[in-house]
Amino acid sequence: MKSLRFESYKSPPVLVEVDRPSPGPGEVLLKVAGAGACHSDVAVFTEFDDEFGPSQLKPPFTLGHETSGWVEELGAGVTGFEKGDAYLAYGPTGCGHCRACSRGQDTYCENAATMPFLAVGLGRDGGMAEYVVVPARNLVPLGDADPVAAAPLADAGLTPYHAIKQSLPKLAGGGTYALVIGLGGLGQLAVQIIGAITGATIIATDSDPTAMERAAANGALTVSSGPEQAEEIRALTGGRGVDVVFDLVGVSATIELAMKSVALRGRVTVVGIGNGSFSWNFYGVPYEVELTSTYWGTIEELHEVVDLYRAGSIAPQVELFGLDDAPLAYEKLMAGELTGRAVVSPTR
Amino acid sequence: MKSLRFESYKSPPVLVEVDRPSPGPGEVLLKVAGAGACHSDVAVFTEFDDEFGPSQLKPPFTLGHETSGWVEELGAGVTGFEKGDAYLAYGPTGCGHCRACSRGQDTYCENAATMPFLAVGLGRDGGMAEYVVVPARNLVPLGDADPVAAAPLADAGLTPYHAIKQSLPKLAGGGTYALVIGLGGLGQLAVQIIGAITGATIIATDSDPTAMERAAANGALTVSSGPEQAEEIRALTGGRGVDVVFDLVGVSATIELAMKSVALRGRVTVVGIGNGSFSWNFYGVPYEVELTSTYWGTIEELHEVVDLYRAGSIAPQVELFGLDDAPLAYEKLMAGELTGRAVVSPTR
Amino acid sequence: MKSLRFESYKSPPVLVEVDRPSPGPGEVLLKVAGAGACHSDVAVFTEFDDEFGPSQLKPPFTLGHETSGWVEELGAGVTGFEKGDAYLAYGPTGCGHCRACSRGQDTYCENAATMPFLAVGLGRDGGMAEYVVVPARNLVPLGDADPVAAAPLADAGLTPYHAIKQSLPKLAGGGTYALVIGLGGLGQLAVQIIGAITGATIIATDSDPTAMERAAANGALTVSSGPEQAEEIRALTGGRGVDVVFDLVGVSATIELAMKSVALRGRVTVVGIGNGSFSWNFYGVPYEVELTSTYWGTIEELHEVVDLYRAGSIAPQVELFGLDDAPLAYEKLMAGELTGRAVVSPTR
Amino acid sequence: MKSLRFESYKSPPVLVEVDRPSPGPGEVLLKVAGAGACHSDVAVFTEFDDEFGPSQLKPPFTLGHETSGWVEELGAGVTGFEKGDAYLAYGPTGCGHCRACSRGQDTYCENAATMPFLAVGLGRDGGMAEYVVVPARNLVPLGDADPVAAAPLADAGLTPYHAIKQSLPKLAGGGTYALVIGLGGLGQLAVQIIGAITGATIIATDSDPTAMERAAANGALTVSSGPEQAEEIRALTGGRGVDVVFDLVGVSATIELAMKSVALRGRVTVVGIGNGSFSWNFYGVPYEVELTSTYWGTIEELHEVVDLYRAGSIAPQVELFGLDDAPLAYEKLMAGELTGRAVVSPTR
Repeated sequence: MKSLRFESYKSPPVLVEVDRPSPGPGEVLLKVAGAGACHSDVAVFTEFDDEFGPSQLKPPFTLGHETSGWVEELGAGVTGFEKGDAYLAYGPTGCGHCRACSRGQDTYCENAATMPFLAVGLGRDGGMAEYVVVPARNLVPLGDADPVAAAPLADAGLTPYHAIKQSLPKLAGGGTYALVIGLGGLGQLAVQIIGAITGATIIATDSDPTAMERAAANGALTVSSGPEQAEEIRALTGGRGVDVVFDLVGVSATIELAMKSVALRGRVTVVGIGNGSFSWNFYGVPYEVELTSTYWGTIEELHEVVDLYRAGSIAPQVELFGLDDAPLAYEKLMAGELTGRAVVSPTR
Repeated sequence: MKSLRFESYKSPPVLVEVDRPSPGPGEVLLKVAGAGACHSDVAVFTEFDDEFGPSQLKPPFTLGHETSGWVEELGAGVTGFEKGDAYLAYGPTGCGHCRACSRGQDTYCENAATMPFLAVGLGRDGGMAEYVVVPARNLVPLGDADPVAAAPLADAGLTPYHAIKQSLPKLAGGGTYALVIGLGGLGQLAVQIIGAITGATIIATDSDPTAMERAAANGALTVSSGPEQAEEIRALTGGRGVDVVFDLVGVSATIELAMKSVALRGRVTVVGIGNGSFSWNFYGVPYEVELTSTYWGTIEELHEVVDLYRAGSIAPQVELFGLDDAPLAYEKLMAGELTGRAVVSPTR
Repeated sequence: MKSLRFESYKSPPVLVEVDRPSPGPGEVLLKVAGAGACHSDVAVFTEFDDEFGPSQLKPPFTLGHETSGWVEELGAGVTGFEKGDAYLAYGPTGCGHCRACSRGQDTYCENAATMPFLAVGLGRDGGMAEYVVVPARNLVPLGDADPVAAAPLADAGLTPYHAIKQSLPKLAGGGTYALVIGLGGLGQLAVQIIGAITGATIIATDSDPTAMERAAANGALTVSSGPEQAEEIRALTGGRGVDVVFDLVGVSATIELAMKSVALRGRVTVVGIGNGSFSWNFYGVPYEVELTSTYWGTIEELHEVVDLYRAGSIAPQVELFGLDDAPLAYEKLMAGELTGRAVVSPTR
Repeated sequence: MKSLRFESYKSPPVLVEVDRPSPGPGEVLLKVAGAGACHSDVAVFTEFDDEFGPSQLKPPFTLGHETSGWVEELGAGVTGFEKGDAYLAYGPTGCGHCRACSRGQDTYCENAATMPFLAVGLGRDGGMAEYVVVPARNLVPLGDADPVAAAPLADAGLTPYHAIKQSLPKLAGGGTYALVIGLGGLGQLAVQIIGAITGATIIATDSDPTAMERAAANGALTVSSGPEQAEEIRALTGGRGVDVVFDLVGVSATIELAMKSVALRGRVTVVGIGNGSFSWNFYGVPYEVELTSTYWGTIEELHEVVDLYRAGSIAPQVELFGLDDAPLAYEKLMAGELTGRAVVSPTR
């Protein structure tokens, strides 16, 4: 079958013919519906090498860690799935028997350092192929919702969802404010998710006016970049500041903006891996503000994300590519020419 | 000034001329904008006597425990209020120095048994008059929102809000369901509040089709009474049951319905004081369902309710009466002829 | 190998020679260190038949759902275990891929109705044998702590632990009170766990003075049975009542005692399956008391229970039996002649 | 009466004769039992002037924001207190009617900027005198516990208690670790409080061996300063790191140590006002670690602190001074010659 593979360090992925895989014990073979292209893939094939980067991401492997598909074949010991039913795949694959994996948070597997792979599509073969093998426990049922557009939910949806869910105590009840910095794929979904599950007034900012228009269409108040940005944000809250911030960019300037905009007792979550820094000082930050980071999410949370998608409360904006055009998807991603999340759909 | 007073046990309230009160230390005199008429007032003047009922509710006193108004005069030691500014009054008045009062939950004042009154309008003179005296700490600023329609928020808004806020952990995230039983004044506000601050799918039921239509207009799915009611509710949840129930009626039949409709790990809050009973049995209820009751709320929560009102997220439906017509408001309330919360507005 | 099997409905278990099992994919074969005898086993072999009881508990199968042992052999695809290392087995075995199983709460598996077994030792062969097969994800490492005495932690420890953990918000901080009703195996562990992880003052009650002495030795204040029992409990709290109750008996009289002893805003968890009932009434219970039930716990919680055991903070009292004496263990359990949890230790 | 007053900027406090005050409406006059001397007082009289520091701390005023005493006289409108009963005073004094004050968190009063004082003893006359006036709602009953030694609880107890209570979700259940950096008055109480209300293993560190011995006597594992300090702390946790850190020092080096010692998903609270900085970077800190600060606490929490004190679970170590020796207490504090919290006791 055809697959888009990361074949060697510091080189773009290539279309390669490989054997169709078979599901092992506890695994399921999916016929791929969609596989999202993620910025972190670009880091994998442009930045890492034998010296730098996790050993679990050694090439070759098939890309695609945001994958949906239809059940094709069950591995030994797997029951409870019907051929043809649509599922979204939770990417991370931990040891399966540590404390973190037991709660479905394979991202924080206690044995991660000795595991051969990080996730389906990150070390282990992913969804940019006609078929993909996934552990049964990683599968989340999509019902009759569109499986193709669902693919980005596995990362671009789950990552902000997890951050938002951790922040819910700060957004409980009336009169709260949430700020979303950076309105790419994850940021747009963050706006939708906050709107769907909280009563917070959403403030959103990005340097791209089109992205801000899209956030505004989903109910956000928008604030442009510029020297008055933090003041304008604060003014929208009556001077108090926002209760939570999600910084989807994560460079030093955006973390600075977050910390300037946040209210006493608020919370700032840096989601974007922009490698930014912030000089924290006791007197420089309002009392009891929590500054934290985040990484992907849990299986149960992916079930909840899919609930929102199936109910029509959230909908990723996608740009579809056939499998033959998968290299093009990454080219456009790297060139900043996409208007939605690139999803490679082999059956297209 | 004119006031509607509960003058003697087991007799309806009457319009009486009394002296305009003066605010004591720590108190504020409000010129009344609106005062809501509540079912619990009816219990006070129809059911209680020297033998039955809290001693704090001994007549005579002016009714009206849901009151809004404009600052008229400040008592000794009070600062930080401008004459003419509009406020909503938190009703309960505890000792002010116990643990419960310290957190603004005067409803659970540890010294309640020895306090002379329960609340503004419940023992102590309330808002069904031209002026009312309220402790400064009980005042919640209304800004430029309509103070007259705000009055019912002080009880008909705060009571369901408190119950909903206590239930928020069960409604966190995607894919949750909330059931509201009883769609009078509190029930309609419950529907609005759940819609405003959670992502839950709301199911609502009442024997009155008009009340159900109103709930549907606020986004609820509605289910009619009848022998299949619990099954129909469960069907709307895909068979799983609802995560939380708010029973605004509280008779035995509605508590039974609540317990039949609730999901494993769910929560049932009986809000309505219908004096119903339920025979709880380990095997008769799904595991880990919490059955609980509730009573009014905290000052801070009333601030949050007002936040929702000022943002336009919730709006009590009211039927206005002049002060001269205040007796009529209670007559219509007792006769079930109101279509919204009766609010007595002395300046009308 | 020798095993104690439930061979037919309404008859006591018998020692039978069976083949030593082999671990399937994702499973591990343990050489058994200890297997606890539980009251619920007695219900299985005395009360159930083809008409009554879950179909998953159809005989024949080997008893023992509280099991510890040493790794003997790994099934296909299992890594990360060393032969000879000691583990405690989480009993419940759900589908493994639903939302509840994804968070390690197989007790509430969404597909439980169609699963062939409830747990290791409940439908599927358990630990009352020389060897037992357990899914790898169900194993919790014991390190160098005594594996034999650890066995009861899997149910008699985990069940109260889960109930206590759900109640922690009510026990947060200083000045709280917890009441434990029923001081058998689970009750004694409840006292130890509350003492280990909270600051609550513990009050304990049982009809057996020896059991109360043991609880007192673990730091509990004790109150005898009798008509003044609820008053005496309340007096110990300064009149306020206890914040949480764990009723390990669960008959109507103990639930009544719980509801009479609990404070406003408190929580009552019925743990014991005594099939008791309680007539709940809005005015008969302090405001905001939560009445709830509980069932076993999660894999992650079992890790935490083992943490407490390895740190020496909790220690089940056990009475050891060889495998040949396993029938005797159940006889003594049924006769009420045990002074600790009966643990069958095949290597003894 | 005699009082220790901060008379002018940048000069030590002096003993001055002033009139005995009278309680205003809503206030209570206490005969002082004890008043703690705090490092923050030193900052007030050594660092601030007309240009630098909050305007609310303008001299002159009587020092002492950790005060206990016996009820002497009630102001207008105050009921529910008996003359001679002992109380501890919550220091902060907000506007009394904003949202933060309504929940008893005057530290975060929304009108703080326009309030004349920060707290009893911070702007408003404090407890280093024979008598002190305190708002009735700030009083916490001490029962028959020693009121003199209780004084430091109002700040040196409440401040770490609040920080610990905010961190409780990270310390819930078995197997958790807490690190306390800095073992002066607040640090020793932090160790005691964590021991009293959680099941965490406590690790404590300080440069002073005597302070470490005292922490060890209260159950902490201790780790000395030195280049291997973070590694040694981590080793005590089995390599995982600690779940929460309380940094009572707050200089850059201790914040650095905290962030090096903390586990994934942990929490670091900087309590000490050492004005330290930390360069936060997404990749430099384990995922989901919360870095936060804290400031004093709430009235309700002070009730809980007193519960622990009355139960004997915590006990501040104090060094007593008569009122005439109050200047000496501050001299020894500044010279680092105290072995416990200095408490000025006018009745001594």
